[in-house]
Amino acid sequence: IEEKSFQRLRDILITMPPADIAALFSELSEKSLPLVFRLLPKDLAAETFVEMDSDLQHHLIQGFSDAELQAVVNELYVDDAAALIEEMPANVVKRILRQADPETRRQINEILKYPEDSAGSIMTTEFVSLRAHMTVADAIKRIRQLGVDSETINACYVTDDGRRLIGVVSIRTLILANENDRIEKIMNRYVVSVRTTEDQETVAKMFAKYDLTVLPVVDGEGRLVGIVTVDDAIDVLQEETTEDFEKMAAITPTDRPYLKTSVLEIWKSRIPWLLVLMISATFTGLIISHFEDALKTYVLLTAYIPMLMDTGGNSGSQASVTVIRGLSLNELEFRDLFRIVWKEFQVAILAGATLAAINFVKLMFFDQVTLLVAFVICLTLFLTVCVAKLTGCIFPMLAQKAGFDPVVMASPFITTIVDALSLLIYFRIATMILGI
Amino acid sequence: IEEKSFQRLRDILITMPPADIAALFSELSEKSLPLVFRLLPKDLAAETFVEMDSDLQHHLIQGFSDAELQAVVNELYVDDAAALIEEMPANVVKRILRQADPETRRQINEILKYPEDSAGSIMTTEFVSLRAHMTVADAIKRIRQLGVDSETINACYVTDDGRRLIGVVSIRTLILANENDRIEKIMNRYVVSVRTTEDQETVAKMFAKYDLTVLPVVDGEGRLVGIVTVDDAIDVLQEETTEDFEKMAAITPTDRPYLKTSVLEIWKSRIPWLLVLMISATFTGLIISHFEDALKTYVLLTAYIPMLMDTGGNSGSQASVTVIRGLSLNELEFRDLFRIVWKEFQVAILAGATLAAINFVKLMFFDQVTLLVAFVICLTLFLTVCVAKLTGCIFPMLAQKAGFDPVVMASPFITTIVDALSLLIYFRIATMILGI
Repeated sequence: IEEKSFQRLRDILITMPPADIAALFSELSEKSLPLVFRLLPKDLAAETFVEMDSDLQHHLIQGFSDAELQAVVNELYVDDAAALIEEMPANVVKRILRQADPETRRQINEILKYPEDSAGSIMTTEFVSLRAHMTVADAIKRIRQLGVDSETINACYVTDDGRRLIGVVSIRTLILANENDRIEKIMNRYVVSVRTTEDQETVAKMFAKYDLTVLPVVDGEGRLVGIVTVDDAIDVLQEETTEDFEKMAAITPTDRPYLKTSVLEIWKSRIPWLLVLMISATFTGLIISHFEDALKTYVLLTAYIPMLMDTGGNSGSQASVTVIRGLSLNELEFRDLFRIVWKEFQVAILAGATLAAINFVKLMFFDQVTLLVAFVICLTLFLTVCVAKLTGCIFPMLAQKAGFDPVVMASPFITTIVDALSLLIYFRIATMILGI
Repeated sequence: IEEKSFQRLRDILITMPPADIAALFSELSEKSLPLVFRLLPKDLAAETFVEMDSDLQHHLIQGFSDAELQAVVNELYVDDAAALIEEMPANVVKRILRQADPETRRQINEILKYPEDSAGSIMTTEFVSLRAHMTVADAIKRIRQLGVDSETINACYVTDDGRRLIGVVSIRTLILANENDRIEKIMNRYVVSVRTTEDQETVAKMFAKYDLTVLPVVDGEGRLVGIVTVDDAIDVLQEETTEDFEKMAAITPTDRPYLKTSVLEIWKSRIPWLLVLMISATFTGLIISHFEDALKTYVLLTAYIPMLMDTGGNSGSQASVTVIRGLSLNELEFRDLFRIVWKEFQVAILAGATLAAINFVKLMFFDQVTLLVAFVICLTLFLTVCVAKLTGCIFPMLAQKAGFDPVVMASPFITTIVDALSLLIYFRIATMILGI
């Protein structure tokens, strides 16, 4: 970026998608960022602003004059403005709200009222609503008036006198319809909608299920108060997926990107689960202590503990992850429990037998242990796989039934449970067969 | 479903979204399904058909007369028809293609030519394209002619004489523009597009990044050949997420839903990884065998093996899952390696010290081991957490750099590696400090 070629830079920037401009801006020095940002035309500036991360936004706002801030804030869609305000410190929030025009401020405050992660908090209040008695020509006239400020016009919702949602008409239907048709004749009366209080994850999944690009949001009385657009639904899906991954790895989910999170915050999100799991592993230790005498006689048996524990843990996670994902995609329900258990049981028998057989060959020919010891280890392996698969499929289903997120029953917990069970089986069988 | 109330059933069905009708149909008996399906009006029938699972589709097609099959197939969007054909057995495919009208058949074959999981395979060839010299009024007329068969008209693409993509105009811009404006004046010349050969996961991520509802697909010469719509992008995102979950749990991904997959197929997708991991665990066993004498003197040490292995594994998965997800969302890149390693190192010191301190208290007061033994265990714990966090963050980054999917470096592999390392540390420290 040379000082003189601002005009050329501007010409290049306006050809780029906002997300790419934002990525480019994150590489700029703190000093040149406001300069370059001012080159952007108003609407592109607002779109780019939305794509930037909150630190950069904060830095930019501090450099803005009141007039500049006003221009950006009023150009933002209301849902983006509300999201911005949630990220900024209190003094910046005050400045933003002061610069927003009264109507925008009212709408922002409206959205901020809704609980975090609810449909209300991710909706926008800028949409076009039509009335049933309008003709197609009236409707298109209204869209031309209001469409500039609306986030999307792909779906136009029809309301009655009490602002209650009574139908939907897509822009495509409008364009294909006759100019004199009444909206009530061409509208679809059966609209999928959500309440403001609905969880955002449910909302996002409805987009996937019903192939939507817009979803109307209604209040307790069925009045249309906003719309959620598909781009926000995709963001929610990505966020929820990240949360699921984190929960499965025993991490308390955080909203911030990794590189922006402080060491102390990362530590805080990870240490509780490490502690809980460490203390749970004590039980496994107790089992070993209990069979200390047996181990003294057959120290050899110790060498197979890691293999048994790991194979059990892996078998269990395979089953639990399959079930957790199935529940999350609504492919599985609690009433399928017995079908799932039966299927996992069959898989467990097959997998357990395969692993035991291969292990038997290895034990006899490579490790050259006695037949009895090989038998103890292989039988344990077989039973461990069975127990692990069943634990792995039953626990997430029970968690879901009890109203918990089944994801907490992912690998770390299943592994801890299976560890203890596999050692119990190991020592029981060893004492029985080897007579120690 | 009573025999007589077909009319009433039809009235209820037409008020329901296709996805819900499909869910309802999956509960029907094999015999009544074709009867009820015939109640649906043509367009709703096609939309519902798309939402059904492939077994039911197969069953329905077998019951269809040629005329019925023809009606459904020609009503389907071309991308859905192509997806259907990929799922059906060869004889059914032949019947479907025979019933499709020649133009549809040509388009279906076009899509089927592209490799699986490419942009070409998920696109539809039914879209409206405009020319630069048209006026807005011309354009709207053209949309009214072609729009009925087009999957979406939210974005209309502008092409030149050689069918090359030169711009895009949204239906909203068209509606808000003056009737006499030329398209070249109002169109946006900078269109994000993908090549037919692009991977579908990249395509889906572009929707998320650029907040798109439609994405144009061009061939090697820049000619517009199709469009991908956001609903298909969401399906791809969900599919890829499921695959990531499966890979993280050491399962070879399959496309079929769990309840439809046979026991043998599930076994086949799980057993190779279980075997590989079981055999890798042998090294851990070898380490134990190597220190058998030390263990004979201090059998007590065995009791802490599971706790050390589990804590190491959990610490490692936390780091690896964080890094894997960051890579997948493009929040992290290879050049961040040193920042990540440094951050994880600090987190590891903190987390390791916390766990070691709490464990020390437990060892001294509850387990009442000697000070030296407690010291050995806590030092091992601390070092294991450090090694695990570093392994967990470095391996996925290296895998990505080497061109592999970093997901394969998730918990199961990290755990196996960390197990071996933690035992090595344990016994080294034990032999040094306890002098065995």
